[in-house]
Amino acid sequence: IGSFDFNHHSHRRFNPLTNSWVLCSPHRTQRPWQGKEEDAEDSSTTSPSFDSKCYLCPGNTRANKTIHRNPDYKDTFVFENDFPAVQQDQPELVVDDDSFNPLLQVESVRGQCHVICFSPNHDKTLADMSEQEILPVIDAWIHVYDSLKDKPDINHVQIFENKGAIMGCSNPHPHGQAWSTQDIPQETAQELENMHRYKEKYHRCMLCDYVMTETKTKDTSSFPAGSMNGKANAVMNGSTHLTNGTSSIPPKSSSTSTAPDGSRIVCENASFLCVVPFWATWPFETMVLAKTHVATLSELNQAQKLDLATILRQLTCRYDNLFKCSFPYSMGIHQAPTDGNREHHETSHLHLHFYPPLLRSATVKKFLVGFELLGQAQRDLTPEQAAKRLTECSYVHYKKSRV
Amino acid sequence: IGSFDFNHHSHRRFNPLTNSWVLCSPHRTQRPWQGKEEDAEDSSTTSPSFDSKCYLCPGNTRANKTIHRNPDYKDTFVFENDFPAVQQDQPELVVDDDSFNPLLQVESVRGQCHVICFSPNHDKTLADMSEQEILPVIDAWIHVYDSLKDKPDINHVQIFENKGAIMGCSNPHPHGQAWSTQDIPQETAQELENMHRYKEKYHRCMLCDYVMTETKTKDTSSFPAGSMNGKANAVMNGSTHLTNGTSSIPPKSSSTSTAPDGSRIVCENASFLCVVPFWATWPFETMVLAKTHVATLSELNQAQKLDLATILRQLTCRYDNLFKCSFPYSMGIHQAPTDGNREHHETSHLHLHFYPPLLRSATVKKFLVGFELLGQAQRDLTPEQAAKRLTECSYVHYKKSRV
Ligand SMILES: O=P(O)(O)O[C@H]1O[C@H](CO)[C@@H](O)[C@H](O)[C@H]1O
Ligand SMILES: O=P(O)(O)O[C@H]1O[C@H](CO)[C@@H](O)[C@H](O)[C@H]1O
Repeated sequence: IGSFDFNHHSHRRFNPLTNSWVLCSPHRTQRPWQGKEEDAEDSSTTSPSFDSKCYLCPGNTRANKTIHRNPDYKDTFVFENDFPAVQQDQPELVVDDDSFNPLLQVESVRGQCHVICFSPNHDKTLADMSEQEILPVIDAWIHVYDSLKDKPDINHVQIFENKGAIMGCSNPHPHGQAWSTQDIPQETAQELENMHRYKEKYHRCMLCDYVMTETKTKDTSSFPAGSMNGKANAVMNGSTHLTNGTSSIPPKSSSTSTAPDGSRIVCENASFLCVVPFWATWPFETMVLAKTHVATLSELNQAQKLDLATILRQLTCRYDNLFKCSFPYSMGIHQAPTDGNREHHETSHLHLHFYPPLLRSATVKKFLVGFELLGQAQRDLTPEQAAKRLTECSYVHYKKSRV
Repeated sequence: IGSFDFNHHSHRRFNPLTNSWVLCSPHRTQRPWQGKEEDAEDSSTTSPSFDSKCYLCPGNTRANKTIHRNPDYKDTFVFENDFPAVQQDQPELVVDDDSFNPLLQVESVRGQCHVICFSPNHDKTLADMSEQEILPVIDAWIHVYDSLKDKPDINHVQIFENKGAIMGCSNPHPHGQAWSTQDIPQETAQELENMHRYKEKYHRCMLCDYVMTETKTKDTSSFPAGSMNGKANAVMNGSTHLTNGTSSIPPKSSSTSTAPDGSRIVCENASFLCVVPFWATWPFETMVLAKTHVATLSELNQAQKLDLATILRQLTCRYDNLFKCSFPYSMGIHQAPTDGNREHHETSHLHLHFYPPLLRSATVKKFLVGFELLGQAQRDLTPEQAAKRLTECSYVHYKKSRV
């Protein structure tokens, strides 16, 4: 039956950030689809640049708050969510330590929720905006983070964007959110912990190493680099594969026979790298990583901010071009918690995750359901195939290139 | 601002099976919804009991396999998936240990995929079937598991059902699947590990204890039982809350001031308990647990199987009655791996998870997106509110009660 081919044979890949595995079944893209189709989120149908009923457009009245009227803002606009998931004013939760039951653990969560409008223009998205228009969005993200970081009750600021109705977004006006909480949320806490463990073992930052691994010069070696077939536990304990007392030496991928070949890179510039991660779950999931070790957006200089704006524009354009639609996704920024913990800050490495649901076309998404919820995350095409599809898309928006 | 009220104030709850936290924001159900609505999966529109184009109906030809014709089956029918996510015949993945990179870990996954038809009747669902009709489905699940359990290449059998187009199901004919793999999938591996740790610490089974906790007699104490407000890390290390050297004593919830009050129970019988778990993520998520410590369906006697059939019928009827629709969900059975590991078998406790996506009505689902994917799972109504809604629904199907 020949030799193992990653484009045809089932395998699973390890996500070191979450410490979990993803099943990859590339032959399954051949399956015919008779299931649910979504309405296409087609950006070619022109919507108005101002909508008098939109509660985010400049000058309009906000949802549930008849007394609030939006200012006549020119680039970005930040306000506190009228229906926040977490609030600042709520009573303390009284603890009864004597009756502790490990199966009924609960904590109070205080916090604040902000909405961040990206543009006064109702029908724009990041993909339609120029670098110069995206820069103020980055500054707004920084402003929200910085204005909350010294509050004693806020230990983490999670900035994200849900784009498209299919991603639960109820208003097409370009906007994101920030949910800031007392606790460090599960995902970030887990990433931090795994990055911390990596650092203890290899004395290097996991994501600095990952940038290095993915950007090594292409070579002729067979994919994938550094592959192994050991048992999960053996790998997680990390004892098996690091022989000769090398466990304190960072993993080298310089051996020509196993060097990565840049096949997961979507785009890059001096300060940022965008890849479909080796362990991606969503079909066209990407990660944008700072090339140097910075913990927060606030630490970026002007040139780096411009590089971030550029890579965001290029990535979102490629996304729109892939299926010729306004490409839906959830995007989030992972940066250092604001808990004042120095070690947390040093361990953090600024990166953004993009989780887009579409698989085959503008109307057919990937369902992460039965096996995925009960067993293991599962993907159809390989991350390398996804990256290839995205690099083949232009970074000029299809609507603009038509003009 | 008064005292802490779980029906109004944000809190997070700990899921001991997955070792992760879920944010609960109950006041958020008041938020108006202007976002995406799904097509209702309305079971009142009559579909035919036989569909000549359905590749699962008795006597029909199967998808992609023109030579295969389904038998004229009378209750259940099991066959190998024509588009399997994992296969038995694939080459070995050759290991190159010298070039191990912890960021590029991959394993081959061999396995088998089965489809399990629940009924020859195209327009039935578990909610429409009698206990006597559900019994053969349970036997089919047992048959699949037992026939695979001695295969050396199969170490785990994941049985599940995706119901409804919204859950990625592409054929309404009542059916489930089994994906059987060389590896123990992520979710099960994690549950096993956490149950193992619990057992090491308390010398008891986590889910036996959970059944006990949830079924204690109602009392007048304020919700929730055994609540605590410590820091996540303190809890996870487990050192803080177990004073006086009691760490080897199982948690007792017999103190009247903190005893649970049965408020998460949806239904129960002699052998099974159905609850909205304390840590539920999906709005109407439930868990069906064996009341005694059994590791697999195969170990159930006839009376217990009938009890399982009964609770499945009652639960799925309540689900349909909640929003008067054919209620979508992903369901899965967690039982012992088939890896021959005695400790794994002893640690396992048979249970089923139901993950339904709907939140407000037959057409408005909960979106687990931005904050949920990047930060932390989040729910709106409390598990106790969800359980109350479900217990208020009849276990007689609304279509039958209309007749
Ligand atoms: O195998 P099916 O029913 O065609 O496919 C469905 O269930 C699978 C297992 O949960 C998922 O991977 C698919 O995304 C979903 O559409
Ligand atoms: O706050 P929004 O945009 O109204 O709501 C959306 O994003 C939230 C955060 O990811 C989710 O909890 C909601 O389910 C989703 O509909």
